Amino acid sequence: MATPRMSRTNINPNVINAQYAVRGELAVKAEEYRLALERGEKLPFDKVIFANIGNPQQLEQKPITFSRQVLSLLEYPPLLQNEEALKSSFGYKSDVIARAKTLLADVQSVGAYSQSLGAPGIRQSVADFIARRDGFPASQKDIYLTGGASAGVSTILNVICAGKQTGVLVPIPQYPLYTATLSLLDATCVPYYLNEAQSWATDVEEIRTSLANGEKAGTDIRAIVIINPGNPTGASLNPAAIKDVIDIAAEKSLVIIADEVYQTNVFKGEFTSFKKRLRELQAEFPGKYDGIELVSLHSVSKGMVGECGHRGGYFELVGFEPEVVEQVYKFVSINLCPPVIGQCLLECMVHPPVEGEESYELYQKEYNSIADGLKQRAFALYEAFKKMEGVECQEPQGAMYLFPTIHLPPKAVAAATKAGRKADEFYCLRLLDATGVCVVPGSGFGQKEGTLHFRTTFLAPGTEWVDRIVKFHSEFMNEFRG
Amino acid sequence: MATPRMSRTNINPNVINAQYAVRGELAVKAEEYRLALERGEKLPFDKVIFANIGNPQQLEQKPITFSRQVLSLLEYPPLLQNEEALKSSFGYKSDVIARAKTLLADVQSVGAYSQSLGAPGIRQSVADFIARRDGFPASQKDIYLTGGASAGVSTILNVICAGKQTGVLVPIPQYPLYTATLSLLDATCVPYYLNEAQSWATDVEEIRTSLANGEKAGTDIRAIVIINPGNPTGASLNPAAIKDVIDIAAEKSLVIIADEVYQTNVFKGEFTSFKKRLRELQAEFPGKYDGIELVSLHSVSKGMVGECGHRGGYFELVGFEPEVVEQVYKFVSINLCPPVIGQCLLECMVHPPVEGEESYELYQKEYNSIADGLKQRAFALYEAFKKMEGVECQEPQGAMYLFPTIHLPPKAVAAATKAGRKADEFYCLRLLDATGVCVVPGSGFGQKEGTLHFRTTFLAPGTEWVDRIVKFHSEFMNEFRG
Repeated sequence: MATPRMSRTNINPNVINAQYAVRGELAVKAEEYRLALERGEKLPFDKVIFANIGNPQQLEQKPITFSRQVLSLLEYPPLLQNEEALKSSFGYKSDVIARAKTLLADVQSVGAYSQSLGAPGIRQSVADFIARRDGFPASQKDIYLTGGASAGVSTILNVICAGKQTGVLVPIPQYPLYTATLSLLDATCVPYYLNEAQSWATDVEEIRTSLANGEKAGTDIRAIVIINPGNPTGASLNPAAIKDVIDIAAEKSLVIIADEVYQTNVFKGEFTSFKKRLRELQAEFPGKYDGIELVSLHSVSKGMVGECGHRGGYFELVGFEPEVVEQVYKFVSINLCPPVIGQCLLECMVHPPVEGEESYELYQKEYNSIADGLKQRAFALYEAFKKMEGVECQEPQGAMYLFPTIHLPPKAVAAATKAGRKADEFYCLRLLDATGVCVVPGSGFGQKEGTLHFRTTFLAPGTEWVDRIVKFHSEFMNEFRG
Repeated sequence: MATPRMSRTNINPNVINAQYAVRGELAVKAEEYRLALERGEKLPFDKVIFANIGNPQQLEQKPITFSRQVLSLLEYPPLLQNEEALKSSFGYKSDVIARAKTLLADVQSVGAYSQSLGAPGIRQSVADFIARRDGFPASQKDIYLTGGASAGVSTILNVICAGKQTGVLVPIPQYPLYTATLSLLDATCVPYYLNEAQSWATDVEEIRTSLANGEKAGTDIRAIVIINPGNPTGASLNPAAIKDVIDIAAEKSLVIIADEVYQTNVFKGEFTSFKKRLRELQAEFPGKYDGIELVSLHSVSKGMVGECGHRGGYFELVGFEPEVVEQVYKFVSINLCPPVIGQCLLECMVHPPVEGEESYELYQKEYNSIADGLKQRAFALYEAFKKMEGVECQEPQGAMYLFPTIHLPPKAVAAATKAGRKADEFYCLRLLDATGVCVVPGSGFGQKEGTLHFRTTFLAPGTEWVDRIVKFHSEFMNEFRG
């Protein structure tokens, strides 16, 4: 009899070391509860609320009609043979039909592989979008379509990281994709802390300290990740803060990895892209910023689109040497191409109907209603947190998350230790068991030693689930009060 | 002024070392020719034929109506509010509508992330398909949906490979995904040669020799890749050959990675899966094969479905320890989930309409017509190769490729060397320049020292492009004749 060859002791240690809490133990347990309820089992709650992951359409956010009508035609082009019936029976507009034809001409069939970088016409649409957004030109040759932003991050880090000595500056707290991918590549995460007291601002002095510490440890720090607006914090960088980061990147020769997937989820102020700020600075100070290498990532999963399941996105490469670009191309070609229907959805996102087109009015209505709903729910949750004992939360600024601090009584911390748990994990597990609300402990994103947080989305409709959290929290605090 | 930080000298050397010819220099040049023709430029040919990649729908293969009708409904579910119009104006059948409703109930929205392993109902359909195909039970808990088989291969190799000392047996010639992924992981490819004289059979003595050589070199050989039917060779393993591989895996404690994406592209004999053969052997010899670990991969990209652009597939894990399975789960969760519409397409592939259902007849007709067309074109190409001077080709057996040997005159080899090219590369470049037909040099897949081949798909319709190859070859041979 053969004995199994693979065990925890001999598989890839980089995989073992990777951590990814967003879909970890709590998410698995939440799914078990959901199935138990489906089977009719009795639990202290009648519905599981998945507030652990930014998955809008799981929580009843409706897709944008324009995009989905286009995609339906791409999946079954013979529908285009009866435009009259499409219009009269199903309300398809002429601009929907026209867009589907344009996209089909570009991709031929959504069942065919596209070029590895994505379909040329779609890349051109993305470049046009960036140019409109920033007021500076963009070229389709710098655009790489991806299967969601995660695939883009993986590509970039794969090319940049050359083993343990390579360091990448990552904000803490962060979306754990970054630390997980660095673990898989056996590269070194060099953390820099965001400033919670200043609404989770990106603090250049913190970055300098981390750089100095990393350099002292012999790490070759090559890149800095900025998540703007922040995940899990929601914090948005203003033009001055972006300049600070670009300055330090120029000074220390760092590649800037700008994760801008929440660029339309901004409640306070206005989103400024790193690309725009860089081009402004390059115009203002000729020569000074010429060598800067920037990767900017975007996605169809977030914003008002919320099409996570379609796995679409792109990154733009700015300022890289051709010999490096060639290697990026080879890397993405090994994975053949991003999902073509997701590429087409991306096209609809970056090139929505404009005033005067038939679908414009409905598009605007749907878009604004989603945006308003997100803001309302963010503030409703924030108001609830403000009233909870020992909970502090920054005012919502953007993204899809709140990341409150929780101060737990020493007895709760002791009970967690006894259960072999981190205190925030213990709290979140108890919350799930009592209320069916699944959130992610702050330790899954990183947090300053001695502080405790959790991340919750504000996507779930209604306020009943918020009431459940408030009630649980009060009971939890009473149970462990000193 | 900052200087660029990244250059060929400091990026990830594993990326630099990876080779992937299928979308390499020749493919890039072919695309440039296509664009030149589109711009109206004059070339020695009026159409580029992409015979370098198994991309059926790029070459006019039509998608299966049943699947695409279902997908159109999933992309825009409000279509389901007028079933009458769907039927009368567009010919949708009741079973299409019913399937769309079932899938929507499972995934909720194709725009929502699914579970990391894929939607539970779809995984169950895959398990049912495997059970029907093999006559042995399969469980949805062992099924992992993926974004194409490539993503599955990457997942498995990421978990198995623990650095340079890890060896994986790979057939030569092979689909270069394997060598490229091993390069990215800095693991060691241990090649074993397929036996061209015996129709590219998998030769156990060759495997033993490679194992011995690898072990002598201190390599910890953990797994063996089998591509069945073969890419680029088309060769199919019969039950006896599969038993030989399983026996050596049992003896040497090797994980079996069975790439079975061409399982329906078989012209000669009948496909037998590794899973089925393993279960037969386990039943026949109780205990002897208990510890075998097997990964079996499948895809929507090939077969009669040919939906490459949708990036759908799955792998089944057999016999792995729970602690290893847990790490596979974590790895796939970092990438969130495979494209949901691709998952749904996979469901349609593994669960097609059956006799008595309204879409059955059309489905059968479409499926058989594609199958017949592929076989006809394979044999037409084979007949042409038989007549070409210095070309030898095995009779077509399966997959989507022919992989002929070419014997080139010494002067051609000398001219190649002078041009700084491998001889097969030189030949394929000249073929492309003269005819617009893009094929891949054998060196992109690996070949025995001193032999030369190229891989061509037999997907392109018509025979005119085959005539172009024949004419080019004759002129090439005359040019370099001694």
